[in-house]
Amino acid sequence: MKNKFYQYIQNLQDTITSKLEDIDGKAKFKQDIWKRPEGGGGRTRVIENGNVFEKGGVNISGVHGKLPKSMQAYFKVGNVDFFACGLSLVLHPKTPMVPTVHANWRYFEMYDKDGEIIDSWFGGGQDLTPYYLFEEDAKHFHHTCKTACDKHNPKFYPTYKKRCDEYFYNAHRNEGRGIGGLFFDYCKATETMTMENWYNFVTEVGNSFIDAYVPIVEKRKDLPYTEAQRNWQEIRRGRYVEFNLVHDKGTLFGLKTNGRIESILMSLPPRVQWVYDHHPEAGSEEEKLIAVLKSPRRWIV
Amino acid sequence: MKNKFYQYIQNLQDTITSKLEDIDGKAKFKQDIWKRPEGGGGRTRVIENGNVFEKGGVNISGVHGKLPKSMQAYFKVGNVDFFACGLSLVLHPKTPMVPTVHANWRYFEMYDKDGEIIDSWFGGGQDLTPYYLFEEDAKHFHHTCKTACDKHNPKFYPTYKKRCDEYFYNAHRNEGRGIGGLFFDYCKATETMTMENWYNFVTEVGNSFIDAYVPIVEKRKDLPYTEAQRNWQEIRRGRYVEFNLVHDKGTLFGLKTNGRIESILMSLPPRVQWVYDHHPEAGSEEEKLIAVLKSPRRWIV
Repeated sequence: MKNKFYQYIQNLQDTITSKLEDIDGKAKFKQDIWKRPEGGGGRTRVIENGNVFEKGGVNISGVHGKLPKSMQAYFKVGNVDFFACGLSLVLHPKTPMVPTVHANWRYFEMYDKDGEIIDSWFGGGQDLTPYYLFEEDAKHFHHTCKTACDKHNPKFYPTYKKRCDEYFYNAHRNEGRGIGGLFFDYCKATETMTMENWYNFVTEVGNSFIDAYVPIVEKRKDLPYTEAQRNWQEIRRGRYVEFNLVHDKGTLFGLKTNGRIESILMSLPPRVQWVYDHHPEAGSEEEKLIAVLKSPRRWIV
Repeated sequence: MKNKFYQYIQNLQDTITSKLEDIDGKAKFKQDIWKRPEGGGGRTRVIENGNVFEKGGVNISGVHGKLPKSMQAYFKVGNVDFFACGLSLVLHPKTPMVPTVHANWRYFEMYDKDGEIIDSWFGGGQDLTPYYLFEEDAKHFHHTCKTACDKHNPKFYPTYKKRCDEYFYNAHRNEGRGIGGLFFDYCKATETMTMENWYNFVTEVGNSFIDAYVPIVEKRKDLPYTEAQRNWQEIRRGRYVEFNLVHDKGTLFGLKTNGRIESILMSLPPRVQWVYDHHPEAGSEEEKLIAVLKSPRRWIV
């Protein structure tokens, strides 16, 4: 399974970066291959200063060895071997009219002393962070997520949509990071779902990413915008930074377990502002976005 | 003591904000008085878009009531009453030639059921974060810190200088946030230091702030700088954000105990950049700064 999934994310990284370069029309992904001293490594691909993408990364990694102490405590296991691989992407478009997007698909294995798998699971998801809310875009994104989920279980979309709203939440601001999507973790073999079934589900979601995001980019990338709208985007990007550095378990985990810092922090936006006590004007588009972030909506009835 | 110290930080806030407005010559501090629902409140003063100061805050607060659950666990005490007050300041100058500065002086009391003090202590410090290193400025700042310390105990400066280097450290980057200064905490009554002695020490440091920082601002504020130097400042400000959101106990404490968010996060810089895998050129001024951040220097021999 680990080889099959790693092969899958390698191919998916190629497909996604190639598609994004086509859309951007100017910038190309720069590739960094890195090794982890304790075992494994990754292929980081970052795009900067494009026509469409101001900054973004589409990274894969596959790491293995002794489970680090901090992870032993986290997973409540002893001194075991592990393997983990995944694809993580974050794209920060230049225009405030195109949302930032994040996605991640990952697979984890733990082994006993004889190298037998004692536990394994999939996790991941994809979620959208708009600066201006186009309801049809939110509906399109969620509809694509739901279609991918429904092929596997009709309960997946409502369950993982709710988990996404709960996870990507800036508790200190009482607002969501964005308008959500899917978030799932610890997808383990059960009576009804084998690991093969989970592989099919996770790769279905992975394959849906381009359909979920790219039509939104194409529809909004050439819309005009003002300097004030750009400032709003940079202020909202500050909230993205706050989530990733204060609340995101994946980021903190990476920072505290000696991960490759530049691959982890590629998620941070290129240009950000913090303005003291900023509040959008009553009745503005900016205020409408905040209202939705404070009370997540059902995008599909 | 609590009334005396609160009176002191009120006066110090007036003195510092008045001096900074004089230097800035354009922007004035905007004042927000806020109340804490559970008891106490604060007086936040923020300056933005000045000639010299792009953003900064000089805030005081005095809060009291039942010690929040998270703080009970942190201090390993039961359900007790507390009082805490302090002055916190962060100044982000517009020009990369003037360092960012942070300072904090605080006092804490805990009470038994009869309202008797069961524990009390002072804490605080001041530290400098330059974007370009002028060695004479670093020496001036540390010399002023040392002079204030030496009046009370010759061991204070070396001890609190070292603690400052250790505390303001971005472990995930293997570098200090800045070039240090002083950091002290849990300054409690001992055989040689009464609380009155500690009050005299802490206020001595508080009174030294203007002498430590203002001459540096005056000397560097009108130096010319390039767009590339400004970009470097914004990239380094990203490291400031990383420290405050990932490592700073005070910030995380505030965020997780329902503090006044805008007063806590006034410390974040106004405009920030994150560039993937950025490294200064060999032999550049930027690289010299990094070298000092990676191995803290003794500024006073």
